[in-house]
Amino acid sequence: QIIDAIEAELTAGPLVGKRVLVTSGPTHEPIDPVRYIANRSSGAQGSALGQALVALGAEVVFVTGPADVPPPKGVQVVRVQTAREMQQAVQQALPVDAAVFAAAVADWRVATASDHKMKKTAGGLPVLELEENPDILAGVAQMGAGRPRLVIGFAAETENVTEYAAAKRRRKGCDWIVANDVSPETGIMGGSENAVVLVTEENAEPWPRMSKSEVGRRLAARIAETLGS
Amino acid sequence: QIIDAIEAELTAGPLVGKRVLVTSGPTHEPIDPVRYIANRSSGAQGSALGQALVALGAEVVFVTGPADVPPPKGVQVVRVQTAREMQQAVQQALPVDAAVFAAAVADWRVATASDHKMKKTAGGLPVLELEENPDILAGVAQMGAGRPRLVIGFAAETENVTEYAAAKRRRKGCDWIVANDVSPETGIMGGSENAVVLVTEENAEPWPRMSKSEVGRRLAARIAETLGS
Repeated sequence: QIIDAIEAELTAGPLVGKRVLVTSGPTHEPIDPVRYIANRSSGAQGSALGQALVALGAEVVFVTGPADVPPPKGVQVVRVQTAREMQQAVQQALPVDAAVFAAAVADWRVATASDHKMKKTAGGLPVLELEENPDILAGVAQMGAGRPRLVIGFAAETENVTEYAAAKRRRKGCDWIVANDVSPETGIMGGSENAVVLVTEENAEPWPRMSKSEVGRRLAARIAETLGS
Repeated sequence: QIIDAIEAELTAGPLVGKRVLVTSGPTHEPIDPVRYIANRSSGAQGSALGQALVALGAEVVFVTGPADVPPPKGVQVVRVQTAREMQQAVQQALPVDAAVFAAAVADWRVATASDHKMKKTAGGLPVLELEENPDILAGVAQMGAGRPRLVIGFAAETENVTEYAAAKRRRKGCDWIVANDVSPETGIMGGSENAVVLVTEENAEPWPRMSKSEVGRRLAARIAETLGS
């Protein structure tokens, strides 16, 4: 009965028949077989959004790095480690109606990653030379044919959040940026709440601080509204 | 009744009255507020050893980085992030009868760690300059007065495991090294099994591959034997 009720609700949801891609979590970029560069994304906001999209009836492809939070139920999960693996998984998930890039993708990988564990030697300190990772968001946002109707990026900043987000939106060519302040004192990175600014072509809407689940539900509702219009 | 039985067993254990320090898990070394350098230690072997020491009646101080595996029950847990925090916690835990350094401490930290999130700029790629972290194992192994009677290090290698471990034992001045091969193809890092070589002053004993719990029990038994002799 419960399953029937859920199925009935799903079938009735505004996103039935829509396919949505969500990326989530951090990426890990290897330095050597035991060391890597990571970031503090827990994957909580991406999972909350994925869950909310499923609840509205969407078919969700969920491409996730090694997150602390489990993926939502009812999505197709694709697990990756590095930015380059995430890019491949994203390309394979297309075409979609909407794509939401909530993952905290490493901007850089280590150019000099080693096959063997780096050793401490008398010869001085190692220097990690970085090279740029592919820009997954821009790649999809700037597609010609086959571009998702709605492409949404995330921006995690520690200062000038709205300005940086508006500039990022233009630079990447995406439709919306969900921007948040991840300064340690906000407790947002790794926490259960989020305070975001939704930056669109028209304006920047600061949302009140609320749970990541609630941010996910509101964002899913906005996506449904836009895809349905 | 169960608690009584446990307490009776504890009171009867060969390590009753002994205080043992165990370090466990990885350390995280910040690059900026959202990025850090980590390593693939899950903390599973450290937790298994701590549990086995408690079962033999030891008072265990368990200094742990951000591990995947929860700390054992019945220990005093001290949580740290970086190598320098771990060193401080270790110093505060002394004096102890035995100290086991199972943590995968980062050899290096980022000399140029930033207070603000690093941005992609046209000005080229960032380079991470590293500086050496304190050598926690050597610091304790080479103490004069107040040195624990038994100081045990771990070595995670991807090649020449026993040779590197024997050299590490001499260089650090510790009594034993528990060496293992963490090459990705072994599945040991992050897995439930371990294959170790116990390197002492006298010899190098390869142990058969067994669960990390069993490695913990055998090692705890050897510690009890040595402290009791």
